[in-house]
Amino acid sequence: MAATTEDLARWLVASTPGDIPGDVVREARRALVNIVGCALGGARHEAVGVTIDALGPMFGPPDAAVIGRPERADPLHAALLNGISSHVEDFDDTLPGNYIHASSPVASALLAYASANPVSGRDLLHAFVLGFEVTSRLGNATYPAHYSAGWHSTGSVGVFGAAVAVATLLRLDVQRMIWAIGLAGTQAAGVREQFGSMGKALHPGRAAQSGYAAALLAAKGFTSGAHGIEGPRGWAPVTSSEYDLSKVTEGLGASWELHVNTYKPFPCGIVNHPAIDACIQLHYEHGVRPDQVRAVRLHVAPLVIDLCGKTDIRSGLEGKFSVVHGAAVGLVRGRAGLREYTDEAVHDRDVRMVRERTTRAADDPTVTEDGVHVEVELTDGRVLEKRLTASLGNLQRPLTDAQLDAKFRDQATLVLNAEQAQRVLALCRRIDELPDVGELVDATVSVPLRERASPR
Amino acid sequence: MAATTEDLARWLVASTPGDIPGDVVREARRALVNIVGCALGGARHEAVGVTIDALGPMFGPPDAAVIGRPERADPLHAALLNGISSHVEDFDDTLPGNYIHASSPVASALLAYASANPVSGRDLLHAFVLGFEVTSRLGNATYPAHYSAGWHSTGSVGVFGAAVAVATLLRLDVQRMIWAIGLAGTQAAGVREQFGSMGKALHPGRAAQSGYAAALLAAKGFTSGAHGIEGPRGWAPVTSSEYDLSKVTEGLGASWELHVNTYKPFPCGIVNHPAIDACIQLHYEHGVRPDQVRAVRLHVAPLVIDLCGKTDIRSGLEGKFSVVHGAAVGLVRGRAGLREYTDEAVHDRDVRMVRERTTRAADDPTVTEDGVHVEVELTDGRVLEKRLTASLGNLQRPLTDAQLDAKFRDQATLVLNAEQAQRVLALCRRIDELPDVGELVDATVSVPLRERASPR
Repeated sequence: MAATTEDLARWLVASTPGDIPGDVVREARRALVNIVGCALGGARHEAVGVTIDALGPMFGPPDAAVIGRPERADPLHAALLNGISSHVEDFDDTLPGNYIHASSPVASALLAYASANPVSGRDLLHAFVLGFEVTSRLGNATYPAHYSAGWHSTGSVGVFGAAVAVATLLRLDVQRMIWAIGLAGTQAAGVREQFGSMGKALHPGRAAQSGYAAALLAAKGFTSGAHGIEGPRGWAPVTSSEYDLSKVTEGLGASWELHVNTYKPFPCGIVNHPAIDACIQLHYEHGVRPDQVRAVRLHVAPLVIDLCGKTDIRSGLEGKFSVVHGAAVGLVRGRAGLREYTDEAVHDRDVRMVRERTTRAADDPTVTEDGVHVEVELTDGRVLEKRLTASLGNLQRPLTDAQLDAKFRDQATLVLNAEQAQRVLALCRRIDELPDVGELVDATVSVPLRERASPR
Repeated sequence: MAATTEDLARWLVASTPGDIPGDVVREARRALVNIVGCALGGARHEAVGVTIDALGPMFGPPDAAVIGRPERADPLHAALLNGISSHVEDFDDTLPGNYIHASSPVASALLAYASANPVSGRDLLHAFVLGFEVTSRLGNATYPAHYSAGWHSTGSVGVFGAAVAVATLLRLDVQRMIWAIGLAGTQAAGVREQFGSMGKALHPGRAAQSGYAAALLAAKGFTSGAHGIEGPRGWAPVTSSEYDLSKVTEGLGASWELHVNTYKPFPCGIVNHPAIDACIQLHYEHGVRPDQVRAVRLHVAPLVIDLCGKTDIRSGLEGKFSVVHGAAVGLVRGRAGLREYTDEAVHDRDVRMVRERTTRAADDPTVTEDGVHVEVELTDGRVLEKRLTASLGNLQRPLTDAQLDAKFRDQATLVLNAEQAQRVLALCRRIDELPDVGELVDATVSVPLRERASPR
């Protein structure tokens, strides 16, 4: 049996901020810009408000700011809320190799920790890079079996990332890092049946909270089995019918998973992106009006139907899992931002009309998951076509820093004024120079500190 | 696809305390006597202290008493701590059909809730019966595949029981009960790699806490997928390669799982029980003194050697996995309670002497896992023999009320004086008459209310 848990723990404990290459630090900053923007964009979502309403009476001392919210909470609940807000709009980053949104569970825990404890930006970035790395490597090692079985790996793998990231800030020794990993794995949870409900966003929230708790428990001597990942009844064998644990440990420190991370231009399932991208292009190239559209035919990869085949859409949340909705808003509005995934947008007359005329089929084997073939048949008989092989935001066409900044502002201004949004963005962009990351987390809250209400 | 989640929710929501037959109420009282005793016995365990040490700074308002502890906590953390204490000594109840210890997650959540909110004993017992029923039925439906895969079902199934039990007290409607079930299933966790570490007891603790949170979230409108149990990516298909969901819903209200629950007489692996039982009988029948023992020969089933074959014992925890230690304390002390599984007991001169003269072998094919053949050779040449085919505590030889009471006192007096222990026992025995169960939970704490320290 491989000693994956111990090998990983030894590498983590030996790592220092100086070991992280400059280009990885740069990508980590981009990931943080993106995830803080997503948390701000999601902070006003009903799922966050409901959680505060339901669990607020249980919150501990309000030591931590919650990103984008006036309420404060104990750091564990702040981690939960950050995880929900940063994922609830399905706008966070994606690892195309394993479909994990790794920043949400990892950064949510870290920013909650950093809000309640003094942490330098350099240390935080180091912990973030390690948590991201562990999450993605465990995802690679168990993909596709783990995901295909029905696990929502952002939660069921992300919990490890949150645990090791907080454990890094707590400077756990090897034994305690092994326990933190084991206690994370034995709390791993989240199934894909929740897609399309608030339950999906609970996953990275709980992963952030449970991983954080795992690190705290391990630090004080709460023991775990020594082979939390690889043991015969450890996380990997229990949750994945096939896996390759060499992908967890081989090349640690030589290759970095942040280099294969991607940022979404559209707040919905990533497999929809090629179709949306193509339809937006058609919108601008041809100035298509809704009443001109007789039929839209989307030729997509089978996975698109599997994950986002919904056609009978009634809510903005359901729209995120509907390639036909994404195509419709792209064609009708020439954009697919948060405002195209509200209940209002779903019931918009023009959007609905075009959506109902849109069909999707996995009938062209040359179309890959990165691509799409769209045909728009107009009432005058013309057929407009668009083929894409690489969608905006994927590894071949990454968002530029300027595009990431624009995405950040688009979301942040839902809860902050333009000046406040700019200040948070500037702090994210130079996070590794900050003496205390608490300053950044505080800046995401628009209410002056004196007026902040405790949830109790 | 069966509508298991909805069918179950409809049955739960329609159920009233008056629907529970008298014999089920009686067994529920016995289960509560047993689990409250276990929580008292485990309250001083290091795992509980470490958890308070690690997470105490995160505790919310101290609205709930923690069973057997001076610290108070918010109800969610009280549920976590009750779950750890009631399971950590491996002394809680067992369902022999699916190996779930159902009372720990269910009662831990309920008693935390009842400590912070007014709940009558009749309502609490009703909620307990429903939570127990749901846990065991989901266990039956997925056994053995779920357990064999490596899930520790006390956590990974018990979370449903905690959720529906609290949801029953919150009087959720059908839609919210469906959400509570879905949110429980998507937090289900706990793997068997943790056996032998504190992580094992974390499972019912987290299940109690997560199930409780699921009910609170659902009550406020946090949505879940509608098919949390049976959906293609719901809990059952994701965690179990084979399952029969008819076992969840068939005969609901006609048969009751509490009737097939068992209570351990000894705080150790259940396969050791026949040998311990036989040795205790020999102790009393023959008044054997340690210095009279030349050799003890245990003829056991192969599984006993596999699970509890340890002979070189150095700690109380190791003693739980040693049939020779169990036989030795039975013979020397005529009992095998928590005090026989301490480090001191393991190093006791008489116990060690007899243990070192005890051998175990799977050399008699007529001995089943429920039985044993013990031979005790004395220094005067006599050989005492005992054959058992059904061990004390199993369904054929259930503990009597008097034996349950004795087990309760044995554990409770580790943290309470005899008078306090008797008072808690009396309250458990007439729990369905109590106007407010908070009285019972308060009585488990030996420190007067005025002197109680908040964990902060």
